[in-house]
Amino acid sequence: MALIVQKFGGTSMGSIERIRDFVAKRILEEKEKGNRVVVVVSAMAGETDRLINLVKSITQEPNERDMDFVVSTGEQVSAGLLSITLNHMGYPAVALSGWQAGIKTDKAFTKARILEIDTSRILKHLEEGKIVIITGFQGITEEGEITTLGRGGSDTSAVALAAALKADRCDIYTDVDGVYTADPRIVPEARRIPVLSYEEMLELASLGAKVLQIRSVEFAMKYKVPLRVRSTFTGDEGTLIKEEDETMERVVVRGIAHNKNEARITVVKVPDKPGIAAKLFDALAEANIPVDMIVQNVSVDGFTDISFTVDKNDAGKAEKITKEIAKEIGAKEVIRDDRIAKVSVVGLGMRSHAGVAGKVFETLAKYGINIIMISTSEIKISCIIDEKFTELAVRVLHEAFGLDKEESERVKQL
Amino acid sequence: MALIVQKFGGTSMGSIERIRDFVAKRILEEKEKGNRVVVVVSAMAGETDRLINLVKSITQEPNERDMDFVVSTGEQVSAGLLSITLNHMGYPAVALSGWQAGIKTDKAFTKARILEIDTSRILKHLEEGKIVIITGFQGITEEGEITTLGRGGSDTSAVALAAALKADRCDIYTDVDGVYTADPRIVPEARRIPVLSYEEMLELASLGAKVLQIRSVEFAMKYKVPLRVRSTFTGDEGTLIKEEDETMERVVVRGIAHNKNEARITVVKVPDKPGIAAKLFDALAEANIPVDMIVQNVSVDGFTDISFTVDKNDAGKAEKITKEIAKEIGAKEVIRDDRIAKVSVVGLGMRSHAGVAGKVFETLAKYGINIIMISTSEIKISCIIDEKFTELAVRVLHEAFGLDKEESERVKQL
Repeated sequence: MALIVQKFGGTSMGSIERIRDFVAKRILEEKEKGNRVVVVVSAMAGETDRLINLVKSITQEPNERDMDFVVSTGEQVSAGLLSITLNHMGYPAVALSGWQAGIKTDKAFTKARILEIDTSRILKHLEEGKIVIITGFQGITEEGEITTLGRGGSDTSAVALAAALKADRCDIYTDVDGVYTADPRIVPEARRIPVLSYEEMLELASLGAKVLQIRSVEFAMKYKVPLRVRSTFTGDEGTLIKEEDETMERVVVRGIAHNKNEARITVVKVPDKPGIAAKLFDALAEANIPVDMIVQNVSVDGFTDISFTVDKNDAGKAEKITKEIAKEIGAKEVIRDDRIAKVSVVGLGMRSHAGVAGKVFETLAKYGINIIMISTSEIKISCIIDEKFTELAVRVLHEAFGLDKEESERVKQL
Repeated sequence: MALIVQKFGGTSMGSIERIRDFVAKRILEEKEKGNRVVVVVSAMAGETDRLINLVKSITQEPNERDMDFVVSTGEQVSAGLLSITLNHMGYPAVALSGWQAGIKTDKAFTKARILEIDTSRILKHLEEGKIVIITGFQGITEEGEITTLGRGGSDTSAVALAAALKADRCDIYTDVDGVYTADPRIVPEARRIPVLSYEEMLELASLGAKVLQIRSVEFAMKYKVPLRVRSTFTGDEGTLIKEEDETMERVVVRGIAHNKNEARITVVKVPDKPGIAAKLFDALAEANIPVDMIVQNVSVDGFTDISFTVDKNDAGKAEKITKEIAKEIGAKEVIRDDRIAKVSVVGLGMRSHAGVAGKVFETLAKYGINIIMISTSEIKISCIIDEKFTELAVRVLHEAFGLDKEESERVKQL
């Protein structure tokens, strides 16, 4: 008898009808296989925003402790409604809030981290044969204060519960039916990827962001919890995300990700002295601005250029800080470019296959797409290009690596 | 330094603006007097109904445990919003849910009773100088399940907290400014009653029902908690409800209550044998139908008539049961009359003043109002009359007992 953790997001829990016709159905499918089921739910779509807006109409800077006290009620309502539905259908169920489920967190209100889970109450209800429904996104501190885990935290709740309960699988139900080789709105030929490694999923963040919170993938990787991303509405198999194995490696490239939410900042003619880069990036870290790619050119006549990318939301702040540092260190000027995009080719297989980078550059060049910055890791190659070429770049790379074909065919090709 | 418990209802908590402009103001008025303040809040007006409707759209007979799990969130939101408002205004405050506030109840979901309150967490926050805001209407069982106290339960929460904390006073803030000598919509000359005994308040239920839950008055009486009913919006002194003292007794009649929500059922020609009445009223009690007034006529030729009143909502069920019993005991017939009203004259002083009953009957007779049933206690006289005379009866009794005059004047008159 397997133990399955299922997580349903806000869209799935969006109405009484959806809860009854889809969510309950997915739960009972597992139940009928003889499995024990623990369900983690988000608030009904729109509810968390409604609560945040109520709070923000008082002040833009609310007391975070009280903020969590208010916002955590959204999941309590949806969990209760689901339990009422299942009980009404004749299936014993019980709804537990974060504190009732024993989810202990630190005190970082609005972005708390799970410290441990006391699973005794959950196990007791499972032994009684009940479907256990747990509010996602929240927990309780040692002092008995309600905390929330931050946006998308319900995925993390589900994975943490799956790890603590040693669940056989954690199914993340959402409104898309898996992770694709590229965004299907851009590449109609994009295919659902049947199996992915955690590392690939993390690199495919921009494809997966809508379906899976990155933090929850890191958590799943750490505790080796197999994750399945699947659709609440179709019930298809979706995409399984797990530890890599030999069969996975046979596919060189798994998918093409893209991200238009970054901006590039370039410091021109920086005196090439030790400690200059450190000064700049320390200042950005101090201001809590995460930096993605960093490129420094070869020094010419004792001067160099430093380029880096940050999230567009942070670009204004980053530009200001960079200008201050640039003045201090005697750089010539600071240029900010918001009209860039990052296109990434991701796959475990490229570790052992030469020529992937060459193929990327060659393909982009063939279509006249200039590469502004390059960054590589063992399992991905990312290129910063002019924003206007984003969709074209994704399409031509998707085709160049044969991602429109079945994985089995692609393996034969190489 | 006094300790004051304040309770604000759903209308007072109805919007962010009301919370800021009125509720916070009332709290800070007490705070500025140097008092310690514990605040009990209801859900925002309409919110509990919204949650109940969500649940009822799943099933008319929801699992009560889950029902409470869902419905209790309304107060958590309003308590959090008030705390955020006060903190934003610069006054340290903290919101506590029923379980955080240590409110232990029995397991009677949807109508739980408070068993005890562990005040340690409340006292800790008060010592830190904080305004402590507590969700009304709810508590927690020994097993860690969330319960609610039933409609209007926030008044009970407030009084129970005042008793447990040995508060100097419990102020029930609402949208009316006190208890009146009669319903001011019927008697424009009605006056606010400055001081009432608990017993009088209980008898004046129909005047007080809109402002105060009866269960909370019983609770206050039991634990001798002085209650003040006052308006959130005007901040006036309102009506103080406390133990009777000598000054109170000098006023003979305190107010005129009326109730149109009862129906009368009469069993005609009942064989006058021992145990017949018991049989009938046991059956009604069995069906959980509370009976208000009971009148049995003097027996004529071995037969008698029994009349009683019940809430109109229970009248159909009561009629059916009575008809079955009537058949069994060989009574002639059962008559139901929904078009009746109960008018009551209430006052501690009538215990020691003869002639109040006479004045009631004389006044009603003078205006041609026939009395159908009479019931008296030490501090009230209730008459069942034809519903169409209700307003007239209230007005002429109000005038007859001089309730349109100041209490001090009335004392002189007698």
